[in-house]
Amino acid sequence: MRRVAIVGGGATRCGKREATWRELVQEAGKAMFEDVDNISPKEVDALLVGAAQPERFVFQVHVAPMVAEHLGITPRKVIATTELMCASGQAAIRYAWACIASGMADMAVAFGVEKMYMPDMAEAQTNMTCVLDREWDGINGLSAPPFFAMTAQRHMYEYGTTKEQMALVSVKNHHYSTMNPIAQFQKEVPVESVFKSPMIAPPLNLFDCSGITDGAAGVVLVPADRAKEYTDTPMYIIGSGQANIGNAINNLASITEWIPLKLAVEETLKTAKITLKEIDIAELHDCFTISEIMEYEAFGWAKKGEGGKFIENGEPYIGGTIAANPRGGLLGCGHPLGATAILQTLDILHQFRGDVPKGRSVSDAEIAVTHNLSGAANVHSILAYSRTEK
Amino acid sequence: MRRVAIVGGGATRCGKREATWRELVQEAGKAMFEDVDNISPKEVDALLVGAAQPERFVFQVHVAPMVAEHLGITPRKVIATTELMCASGQAAIRYAWACIASGMADMAVAFGVEKMYMPDMAEAQTNMTCVLDREWDGINGLSAPPFFAMTAQRHMYEYGTTKEQMALVSVKNHHYSTMNPIAQFQKEVPVESVFKSPMIAPPLNLFDCSGITDGAAGVVLVPADRAKEYTDTPMYIIGSGQANIGNAINNLASITEWIPLKLAVEETLKTAKITLKEIDIAELHDCFTISEIMEYEAFGWAKKGEGGKFIENGEPYIGGTIAANPRGGLLGCGHPLGATAILQTLDILHQFRGDVPKGRSVSDAEIAVTHNLSGAANVHSILAYSRTEK
Repeated sequence: MRRVAIVGGGATRCGKREATWRELVQEAGKAMFEDVDNISPKEVDALLVGAAQPERFVFQVHVAPMVAEHLGITPRKVIATTELMCASGQAAIRYAWACIASGMADMAVAFGVEKMYMPDMAEAQTNMTCVLDREWDGINGLSAPPFFAMTAQRHMYEYGTTKEQMALVSVKNHHYSTMNPIAQFQKEVPVESVFKSPMIAPPLNLFDCSGITDGAAGVVLVPADRAKEYTDTPMYIIGSGQANIGNAINNLASITEWIPLKLAVEETLKTAKITLKEIDIAELHDCFTISEIMEYEAFGWAKKGEGGKFIENGEPYIGGTIAANPRGGLLGCGHPLGATAILQTLDILHQFRGDVPKGRSVSDAEIAVTHNLSGAANVHSILAYSRTEK
Repeated sequence: MRRVAIVGGGATRCGKREATWRELVQEAGKAMFEDVDNISPKEVDALLVGAAQPERFVFQVHVAPMVAEHLGITPRKVIATTELMCASGQAAIRYAWACIASGMADMAVAFGVEKMYMPDMAEAQTNMTCVLDREWDGINGLSAPPFFAMTAQRHMYEYGTTKEQMALVSVKNHHYSTMNPIAQFQKEVPVESVFKSPMIAPPLNLFDCSGITDGAAGVVLVPADRAKEYTDTPMYIIGSGQANIGNAINNLASITEWIPLKLAVEETLKTAKITLKEIDIAELHDCFTISEIMEYEAFGWAKKGEGGKFIENGEPYIGGTIAANPRGGLLGCGHPLGATAILQTLDILHQFRGDVPKGRSVSDAEIAVTHNLSGAANVHSILAYSRTEK
């Protein structure tokens, strides 16, 4: 397998945008090409587009060739859209990586885009009800917020996790997102604000939940041995893990222990040949505050059931055990489904370059991971990156 | 790159099925596992699912993990849905191939499924209006039938192609599908029947168009050097090509010359190290009769503009220049979008095994290709297979 590097990328500002789907693509595409030295659009021979449900949000299928058209590229080797709901962007990067690693392509763009704000926001919310198995779970009222609310209730019951501990995840991620100019949310959110925000599904208030977001982002992948032609500051893919067990909630082994995540972490450490302690930054999938708490546990930074205490003790802040979501996370930056993983990846690149504001900069970071979950947390996807070639 | 083989697969009967989406998945999955010797569902570490728009047809996203659940597998390496509209299944096979070739996985299932019959068929038709660029082309009434009708009109104007020549493609493919028990259409369709069938978009009558179809299919991919553990009759992926130019119709270089197809053919022959003459069977994307005529030309079996004469002379029948669509094609078998490429691939496997009825069997076939186009024929995807290891 050829080693693969990411040599640059670009993104839109995220949030409720007065821009169409194609304008988001163009905005991110322009930023992406401007970020990479000596690149010619003609060189891009593979395009993988992460998009969760453009068919419903903008009533458009066959979106990868539309992205190609608006980026001004004509991929001659590989083109496809990858869908893995909230991890659709991570799926795009993983496929792009496979293309370069296998030699099937020599320059791949992994792009992500989602336009979620609709003229009728009731329709946007309805669209999110087909994420879990619609006939088995959706029909009983189970969309993402009630599923993660159940998870939180059970975690509180089993381990004594508190609403305040969960709120602290939101406090942290909103704090970091105030220093991220493309983040959807730019204000500090103290614990009281989380508690006062509208109840969504007990125990989750609005600020325990990531937002509905418009956004797009793209990154450029090349063989590692050609990375320096395109940038002085590439970053290298060093490992990955992904696992899926079950789908309908009656088939999940446990809702308070994410076994596929544990498997994906093991695989990532093994393939990257690193230990947990070597990870300097983790971009975690905090679709809900409880998710990040469970991720501290599944990665192994906190003991099982002690994720709440972990945030209470400030461990996932920069300077603590792990710098978790110094970008601002999904809670602070928004969650434009297909674009989310690309945005996480791009921020890691900026961290490695030392190109983020001081208050959220992880100095001398060498190793980072990005993580996404999808569905009923039955699929977990991770990629590991290194600032220097290993 | 590791060499990759397909060791077996299974499919549903296609057509208007009294079966839900998940029942189609189960039916094809069961047939797939029964077809492969010594396989344990636990071995499947990658699952790629081709699905064009389950979000609209069955209001379900995150479908790959649902397929995994209903196949009884728990992929530990790679899982994703691939969308490339009519070529979604081909995209799944290509990604599965990349997984095995790169060493990222050791056994991959490429699956395809589409449930297109809806309680309200007007909605099914509406769903097909978001295939081309909806804001630029769809809004002007351009869905697939009018686009291919324009193509046909122009081909008739430029090259003198006739409605009867187009009808002959339908005659051939419906003839072969009468010998395919899983095909949607089981009756011979003479030229007069094509002419008498309802006008869809001039010059295309109903029998010039592939159907709305329910169906599912899956194939199993492993490293070539392990293929014989799972079957006595594997087939080997020997090459591939895919290319995309443009999307909106104003950005297509030509509508009567499919340049991305010519590029994909070149790439396929080059990577497979074969000549056109060595291809014994071609499963071509005959979404409309005019498509297959243009494919004779783009592949190079017929000269430019002489595709009509090619079918008139019987050249694409078994025993002629190329055995084109001896399965029955999309016209005869139906076109369950995400499943179509998998169904084509499976039939090649059955041809190589000598396991198809005599009237549509290509005896001693050694090399075959499957081809799909998508959108405004702006993307073309091809895979080449060999009966023996090369």
